[in-house]
Amino acid sequence: MKILLIGASGTIGRAVASELRTRHEVVTGGRSSGDVRVDLADANSIRAAYAELGTLNAVVCAAGNVTFKPLLEMTPADYEVGLRDKLMGQVNLVLLGREHVSDGGSFTLTGGVLDHEPIVEGTSASMVNGALNAFALAASIELDRGLRVNVVSPGVITEALDAYAPYFRGFEPVPAARAALAYAKSVEGKRTGEVFRVS
Amino acid sequence: MKILLIGASGTIGRAVASELRTRHEVVTGGRSSGDVRVDLADANSIRAAYAELGTLNAVVCAAGNVTFKPLLEMTPADYEVGLRDKLMGQVNLVLLGREHVSDGGSFTLTGGVLDHEPIVEGTSASMVNGALNAFALAASIELDRGLRVNVVSPGVITEALDAYAPYFRGFEPVPAARAALAYAKSVEGKRTGEVFRVS
Repeated sequence: MKILLIGASGTIGRAVASELRTRHEVVTGGRSSGDVRVDLADANSIRAAYAELGTLNAVVCAAGNVTFKPLLEMTPADYEVGLRDKLMGQVNLVLLGREHVSDGGSFTLTGGVLDHEPIVEGTSASMVNGALNAFALAASIELDRGLRVNVVSPGVITEALDAYAPYFRGFEPVPAARAALAYAKSVEGKRTGEVFRVS
Repeated sequence: MKILLIGASGTIGRAVASELRTRHEVVTGGRSSGDVRVDLADANSIRAAYAELGTLNAVVCAAGNVTFKPLLEMTPADYEVGLRDKLMGQVNLVLLGREHVSDGGSFTLTGGVLDHEPIVEGTSASMVNGALNAFALAASIELDRGLRVNVVSPGVITEALDAYAPYFRGFEPVPAARAALAYAKSVEGKRTGEVFRVS
């Protein structure tokens, strides 16, 4: 398969690239690195990337920004970051990528454990992850040509604990390589409209 | 209790008003009717309504617009309607209303069954409802002074079947008066961070 992987330079993205490269051609995309430049928050940049790449068999996104901040300090603009980037960025990968992906191809998006296990300062992440899960479920019944869409919902990643451990006390960390398996399950399987939890 | 009810002129809102008025003072708010004008999509209008009303004991929202349209025709602007109105409008009711609600008071928002039971043309509604559920869960652990937040998630309302029946074939309709009970359970109980499903 020819697979576009957005966020290939991130902690999860690197592991997904390692997992998929053993069997597939992986084209990497990112805001500031990779084979093609893609800014999730900018629909035109997504359009341009698809136009450049030709037909793909799968799209995987392991990127997406949200604001972590105490609820009592959150402003509408803070929520806007997550809605525009991690949520609508990934939704736009599906909407704009549909015609660039071959029959039966798949979109695999990234949500996260905060959809159902909240942490302090995580209201935007929870909101966005909950939205992604429900979007994938709903989009899966409308996509044509056998196109599929799933969400991988990982817990806190072992390799990212340096930055995140204080927020995720008591959460069992997930090695990036283990999370990467769920992306392979989505891409190489036939399931759709599902949330693959790895936590 | 003194309760602000947004969307009091809608199908669900009228039933919620009937249920709560037997025991409480209900102040109604709406875009074009009610005791106070509130446009959910406009944070300034929410601010102005709160400033006008003085201290409240509970806020109930039974309003919120989303776009219903086939996935293959949905644009980013179509999703923006739901994100700005039903999602961020209700989130802003919490953020901006916090200081106007008394200790232990509550916010009761409206989601819907499409969060986990998708229908054709419903991807925006699913997305927004999923986001609201997760937001309420996450916000509930950060609100101070015992403030509470829940989501009521009703199925298709019996009284609205004239408009919606073709989209909801096979869904068991919920009489508005039955949905209204869930709002009373949220307002008059002590639970928080929950989704009250009525479907």
